[in-house]
Amino acid sequence: MEGGGFVRLDAHMGDDLSVVNAARVSFGARSDAMDERNAGLVRFLMRDRHGTPFEHNAFRFHIRCPIFVVREWMRHRIGSFNELSARYAEMKADFYVPAAADVRTQVGKPGAYVFEPVEAEHAERTRDAIAASYAAAFATYRALLDDGVAKEVARTVLPVGIFTEFYWTVNARSVMNFLSLRNHEAAQLEIRRYAVAVETLWGERMPVTRDAFVANARTAP
Amino acid sequence: MEGGGFVRLDAHMGDDLSVVNAARVSFGARSDAMDERNAGLVRFLMRDRHGTPFEHNAFRFHIRCPIFVVREWMRHRIGSFNELSARYAEMKADFYVPAAADVRTQVGKPGAYVFEPVEAEHAERTRDAIAASYAAAFATYRALLDDGVAKEVARTVLPVGIFTEFYWTVNARSVMNFLSLRNHEAAQLEIRRYAVAVETLWGERMPVTRDAFVANARTAP
Amino acid sequence: MEGGGFVRLDAHMGDDLSVVNAARVSFGARSDAMDERNAGLVRFLMRDRHGTPFEHNAFRFHIRCPIFVVREWMRHRIGSFNELSARYAEMKADFYVPAAADVRTQVGKPGAYVFEPVEAEHAERTRDAIAASYAAAFATYRALLDDGVAKEVARTVLPVGIFTEFYWTVNARSVMNFLSLRNHEAAQLEIRRYAVAVETLWGERMPVTRDAFVANARTAP
Amino acid sequence: MEGGGFVRLDAHMGDDLSVVNAARVSFGARSDAMDERNAGLVRFLMRDRHGTPFEHNAFRFHIRCPIFVVREWMRHRIGSFNELSARYAEMKADFYVPAAADVRTQVGKPGAYVFEPVEAEHAERTRDAIAASYAAAFATYRALLDDGVAKEVARTVLPVGIFTEFYWTVNARSVMNFLSLRNHEAAQLEIRRYAVAVETLWGERMPVTRDAFVANARTAP
Repeated sequence: MEGGGFVRLDAHMGDDLSVVNAARVSFGARSDAMDERNAGLVRFLMRDRHGTPFEHNAFRFHIRCPIFVVREWMRHRIGSFNELSARYAEMKADFYVPAAADVRTQVGKPGAYVFEPVEAEHAERTRDAIAASYAAAFATYRALLDDGVAKEVARTVLPVGIFTEFYWTVNARSVMNFLSLRNHEAAQLEIRRYAVAVETLWGERMPVTRDAFVANARTAP
Repeated sequence: MEGGGFVRLDAHMGDDLSVVNAARVSFGARSDAMDERNAGLVRFLMRDRHGTPFEHNAFRFHIRCPIFVVREWMRHRIGSFNELSARYAEMKADFYVPAAADVRTQVGKPGAYVFEPVEAEHAERTRDAIAASYAAAFATYRALLDDGVAKEVARTVLPVGIFTEFYWTVNARSVMNFLSLRNHEAAQLEIRRYAVAVETLWGERMPVTRDAFVANARTAP
Repeated sequence: MEGGGFVRLDAHMGDDLSVVNAARVSFGARSDAMDERNAGLVRFLMRDRHGTPFEHNAFRFHIRCPIFVVREWMRHRIGSFNELSARYAEMKADFYVPAAADVRTQVGKPGAYVFEPVEAEHAERTRDAIAASYAAAFATYRALLDDGVAKEVARTVLPVGIFTEFYWTVNARSVMNFLSLRNHEAAQLEIRRYAVAVETLWGERMPVTRDAFVANARTAP
Repeated sequence: MEGGGFVRLDAHMGDDLSVVNAARVSFGARSDAMDERNAGLVRFLMRDRHGTPFEHNAFRFHIRCPIFVVREWMRHRIGSFNELSARYAEMKADFYVPAAADVRTQVGKPGAYVFEPVEAEHAERTRDAIAASYAAAFATYRALLDDGVAKEVARTVLPVGIFTEFYWTVNARSVMNFLSLRNHEAAQLEIRRYAVAVETLWGERMPVTRDAFVANARTAP
């Protein structure tokens, strides 16, 4: 991702079978392996909105992204966050500048915007303006620190395009809620790219659940 | 535990080091192993109520206990539950009868009860009365099922002393909140025994955190 | 409702306009009254799953229902509960006996049960058997209390058909999630009746939201 | 507050009596008015960490504050938020510049910082540098918008010191958790001032609860 962004799966617990067994406890039963019948159960649970069996697992992600992205991310309350603090740490000069192909204009009205790419020259002057603004803000930040101003005061000038990092621990049900809203055409392009990365990493560990989620019009149970 | 009750750790993710690294991300740092300095950090986080670093882990327990115990358990909302359903499954004749030493009387007033054991003969006639009541209720349940009544209707006669089972998935912060209230002298004896079992299984995986919790007057961060 | 059950709206805050204004803050705007344009916004938010604007309100319900109903109710974690405690209070001999028309048999398999009423005579002998079982259990409970056994021990023999009462405070988004699952054909008849009562009381205070919810296939945003 | 910040109580439900009655339902009882005995019950609940009775109320606040403040605020997950969106609305040139007396330096190490005011001249040149940085960033933002760049792209250059606004709906238990951490000496000065305003507005509606909270070492139940 641009500017050193990443999504990394730091640890996880559980798989498709954990969904099955959380559901089968309703009947006092338990399975030892996934098979076609169990896959059918996962699809049934997804379709009929039995959400709780998808909660008995955990995924700990380590993420590096701009502040304007983490701002949207942290609106998702069912999950755990710990983030780099600009009160405690000096921030680094690492910023999100959109790739030329991602510089865009908007048409339409709020709630129904459509975005269109801009001409190459327009993209370049936008990128230059953004980068220059970042550089100026960071120069002020550094100067304030060098002048003895507290980090928590100096950081007020930093732009929301600066990179931060955090841990995010969630279960699959919450991941799917996140994906339904953020790997979605109405989401901002930048967070959507992170959501795609989350979906890939998560989906590799719970492929039957991911397929059922996709087949269910990407609606979380 | 009496009557076939149990607490089993079915799966877990994370350890004391995950607490340290969730905290260290605030400074953009990371540790590879626990040492005395990291243990000190865990104790500091506990004491100063920095709760979120204790959330980046997960413990999936499988529990068998009476309904009156699970009723208290499910008041703990930060966590995930799936339970045996008496709508879907026929219940088995497995009930909680207190051991003689656990039959008790109460003195004092609500909020400040003190419990005292009863005489041996008193305990035995209590146990007999409870067991007989369970047996009669279960005979009615069976008769209703045999007469074609739906399980979800027949179960209305079953006592809250009948055993159920469930999966419970939580993080360490929520475990500590649970322990602070349920492995506590004000908790009912029966759920307290389960809480002790949870504390043992959890504490083996996060010994530094458990020791810090105990040293912090068993107050969750 | 049977046996003294009830749902009572004890207090509430907010209405349809609070949904509109929570949404309009996104644009830095505010409305003073509902009109057709604002009603359209509510419908748009419901349809496009913008859930958070439906959270800035509160409904405090006071409910009396059997334990087997409150057991399902408390699985809904986004909300607040306080309930009558059989540790602190002596329970009264008030039990749920299904009306004759509600005694039912089941056909089909778990997850796809169909319920059918039973013949009149079958219904009556079922009601008699349930009532007799309740009476016997309660007699044991009373005898144990009279014999000096602690309330929290004596209550183990009480059936899940006994009435309890509780306060439940929730916002409209959580109410709609509850209704989508409990005022639903897959829900048990008994909790469904309570859900209908909740829907009526809530819907009178937020009629535009309720209509949008119904029009959205009763899917919570 | 500086720069047009405010905290406004937009609506509320419940008072000290709602705490009492949520607790008394445990015993099947109810009170009609606060008196000294009920005040004693509130203090007991606070002291012994019976938290749920403090949840049956709601407070809807409307707040205007800088992004670096709302970033800390939204870490509090038990509550509801809707915020001004820089994807949908053009941001205004309204920024937080610390008053001269609030410009500060820090001594000590992370977790144990002490802040000290700076000399008058130092404060002024800090304020000037911050204001100039804000003005330059905003000029770039405006220029990008005028050049047809989408709002969601242009906003990446805006500093975290810019003002935003949001609605926050919470119950008293969550308010107290917020206050215990944010109206606290370890909190950043800027959010602490908002927390003081929240405490005043909330405390006027629940004075017995607020006094019990303060007497309980400001520890939330």
